[in-house]
Amino acid sequence: MRSMIRSQVYTPTLARLVRFALIQPTLLSSRIIRTNPRRHFSVSRKQAMLSTELTEAQVSALRANKDRLARDLHHSCQWGSGIRWGDGPTDTGMQRLALSQEDKQVRDWFIETTKALNCRVTIDEMGNIFAVRPGRRTDVPPVFIGSHLDTQPTGGRYDGILGVLSGIEALKSMDDMGLETEGGVGVVNWTNEEGARFPISMISSGVWAECIPLSQAHELKEVPTVASLPTASSAPETMRSALEKIDYLGSVPCSYKQTPMAAHFELHIEQGPHLETAGQHVGVVTAVQAYRWFRLTIVGRDTHTGTTAFEHRADALYAFAQMMVRAREVASSHGCLASVGIVEAKPGSVNTVPGVVSFTLDIRGPEDELVNVVEKQLRKDFDAIAAEEGKPIGKPCRVEWTLDFDSPVVKFHPDCIDCVQQSAEAVVADSDSTDPKSLTRTIMSGAGHDSVFTSKRVPTSMIFVPCKDGLSHHPEEFCSADDCATGASVILQAVIRYDRKRFSS
Amino acid sequence: MRSMIRSQVYTPTLARLVRFALIQPTLLSSRIIRTNPRRHFSVSRKQAMLSTELTEAQVSALRANKDRLARDLHHSCQWGSGIRWGDGPTDTGMQRLALSQEDKQVRDWFIETTKALNCRVTIDEMGNIFAVRPGRRTDVPPVFIGSHLDTQPTGGRYDGILGVLSGIEALKSMDDMGLETEGGVGVVNWTNEEGARFPISMISSGVWAECIPLSQAHELKEVPTVASLPTASSAPETMRSALEKIDYLGSVPCSYKQTPMAAHFELHIEQGPHLETAGQHVGVVTAVQAYRWFRLTIVGRDTHTGTTAFEHRADALYAFAQMMVRAREVASSHGCLASVGIVEAKPGSVNTVPGVVSFTLDIRGPEDELVNVVEKQLRKDFDAIAAEEGKPIGKPCRVEWTLDFDSPVVKFHPDCIDCVQQSAEAVVADSDSTDPKSLTRTIMSGAGHDSVFTSKRVPTSMIFVPCKDGLSHHPEEFCSADDCATGASVILQAVIRYDRKRFSS
Repeated sequence: MRSMIRSQVYTPTLARLVRFALIQPTLLSSRIIRTNPRRHFSVSRKQAMLSTELTEAQVSALRANKDRLARDLHHSCQWGSGIRWGDGPTDTGMQRLALSQEDKQVRDWFIETTKALNCRVTIDEMGNIFAVRPGRRTDVPPVFIGSHLDTQPTGGRYDGILGVLSGIEALKSMDDMGLETEGGVGVVNWTNEEGARFPISMISSGVWAECIPLSQAHELKEVPTVASLPTASSAPETMRSALEKIDYLGSVPCSYKQTPMAAHFELHIEQGPHLETAGQHVGVVTAVQAYRWFRLTIVGRDTHTGTTAFEHRADALYAFAQMMVRAREVASSHGCLASVGIVEAKPGSVNTVPGVVSFTLDIRGPEDELVNVVEKQLRKDFDAIAAEEGKPIGKPCRVEWTLDFDSPVVKFHPDCIDCVQQSAEAVVADSDSTDPKSLTRTIMSGAGHDSVFTSKRVPTSMIFVPCKDGLSHHPEEFCSADDCATGASVILQAVIRYDRKRFSS
Repeated sequence: MRSMIRSQVYTPTLARLVRFALIQPTLLSSRIIRTNPRRHFSVSRKQAMLSTELTEAQVSALRANKDRLARDLHHSCQWGSGIRWGDGPTDTGMQRLALSQEDKQVRDWFIETTKALNCRVTIDEMGNIFAVRPGRRTDVPPVFIGSHLDTQPTGGRYDGILGVLSGIEALKSMDDMGLETEGGVGVVNWTNEEGARFPISMISSGVWAECIPLSQAHELKEVPTVASLPTASSAPETMRSALEKIDYLGSVPCSYKQTPMAAHFELHIEQGPHLETAGQHVGVVTAVQAYRWFRLTIVGRDTHTGTTAFEHRADALYAFAQMMVRAREVASSHGCLASVGIVEAKPGSVNTVPGVVSFTLDIRGPEDELVNVVEKQLRKDFDAIAAEEGKPIGKPCRVEWTLDFDSPVVKFHPDCIDCVQQSAEAVVADSDSTDPKSLTRTIMSGAGHDSVFTSKRVPTSMIFVPCKDGLSHHPEEFCSADDCATGASVILQAVIRYDRKRFSS
């Protein structure tokens, strides 16, 4: 099938022409290449170039294929298309919960696609799929490009998906050029990164890094709200049974020891407004901010809304409202974030004051110590708020905290950051700017990603590209085809640069 | 069966003795009577006294039987016993949803009991049960004592139940004394007062008053959360099918025209703390406060909790939190109440800022105009809060209101209020207080009751007795046997006084 596609589109003459251009960088304006459809080309393996033999200029000239990337990305979004927000064929969000039937379909496509690129595909016990394009040397671990194909229930087409698709595009681009690497280059699809169905995000890279026990992950139950979605079963399922049900419970132990990596690179939309606001094209991600997830429960007293004066209430929901307002004040004053995503009030009757409220609290900050300070202050303030509500009747509310997840600040690896920085500068050189370097910046990730866990075991870094209005976890999440391609070009170069770094003498 | 019970317990000699005492009020210390078990007595109808022939002192001496009332009340709570909160045999709440099997059982008992008291029993199309003890005159409508036998899913033993049982106790007390009335005296059990299973409270008195169409009530579906309770069926049922299933779909049209009343009296626990706090025994209810129920929806924008600065958010839940805090401030400043019982945040994910929040708002106040003022102010303030959240990104939140229910202030009938006031003062005279009158107060009902609807068609008023900590809609809801008996004595006297008022020349 692979050779058929080639023969339909390209001619050996064209391929030779472009290969020549690549070897003669002065002839090869990257601007022309980015807009020239003839850049889709292929050479046979016998004619292969080797990554370590390229000149610096040749590496800097490497580009992903914008149109093909966009086509592949939206093709893959047919499985799990979500809420429509515009009239265009791709103007829908995504609803592809981890291990749903739609997730199975896109996984099947991922395997078919990477196998067609001569990749060796393995699936581990967490359903992580590793597709490796072999390098010249078989005694070394591959460098991976990784992210996730699952989405939020009301997610978009780029968060995670762009990362995996840029990996596939990198392999296709390398194939186009007949580019061989010393070590292999892999693409990994991590399972349930979002944590939207099974409520621990990045759980499967966490198991791979041996930071989360396999048994805990296998026994993790889907959240009840998700169970009622049409894409999930009606009764809460464990990850293990969900993996079995879609036939993605692999036999390879989920561990960095069994599936080693030389490095992990991840391309992602920024999910924030900084790049867009500054008109910048690439964020060189140097770190991930610290975050802590809590579940809190406020216990007050159910009582009648019509007959109970305010001073006779221990209204757990009123206490919650004050806490949420306070959380923003405190977090803000320390340059941190504090957010509530889930709230549940019981018993849930119009004319009964809620006696029990549960909610999640997500505290984030650029330094572990700042998160500590915010948590400490909020524990004190929440206790004070609870103590006041119900005090006149001698039945004050009380609040209990449970820590669900603690992710300290992650600093990415300097070698990976260097590769991304050089690649970013090379790619943005295409622009008309008189100071192209100003189109890149170093940036800290606000969100967690699978790279947080890979960084515990192997050199890792990330690349951010702008997204419209900084919006994500929303159907209208959007990254232009140009920005997607810029990111894919950067990750393509970064992987090649890392390979050269490893094996150049 | 009725005569058997009499012969087992009482002797004619005793009955005559007590009757003599009643006619000679100076001999009849009400204190003695309240604690003297011999007060359980009976006379034959031939020896009957007539209500209109009693002296004022004789009326004031009428008392319910405390022990029998307590026994009957807890006996009736065997059907639908709920959550246990103590070790005593009656230390459980109630879970007797309208038209459940448990409700059928207690209805059967109600009919058997009132028939044994020589009542004529009719059942209407809403399953309302009317048991009438005939008076001397058959050409006039009876005076009714009414309330409800259904409960909240986590309710207690007094809300509604005490009202119906006090009616039965009044009939028994009248029988004890051979007391005949001019007009008949009835007891009515209204169907689904709570609105907990079928989500319109007081629906069946509403149909009786022709304020709610029969068809709407018959087609009303049980709420899904209740459908999953063991006492209800697994698939949502309509009121009509639920009535049929337990064989309580009566043939009598549900209307005040078909089942006329001369007046309606209702005894209820206060469901608030005022009586208990003030050490008072009886509340003479003069009115029911106005209330309005709304559903509100705040629309903001879903976004990532980790990557979105506060100033880039349109956080619908944060807007909600500010609104709830503000609602209490505004309501409080106008002597009103504002409560949120239900809140739902979507999409409901730890790391997604909620873009949509729906909640209920219950505003109550002593005057319609005050509720108007609070609503108007909150509409303005909520708009302002919504407009600020998301303003920096040009996507402010917006808030929409839907009115679900509007119940203006109800003023009870002065004739009924007078009867209750006089009766209350007579009954509390038993106390040791040097100023017994201070043990009663006029009070406004915070909650809705079936009396709200009966008051649209016939003279109505209510009696409140204290409940522990003002707590209701809770398994630990509690009213002492003494307080129950006080209330039952007041309603017994009130009915007799009303009968006398109607027929004394």
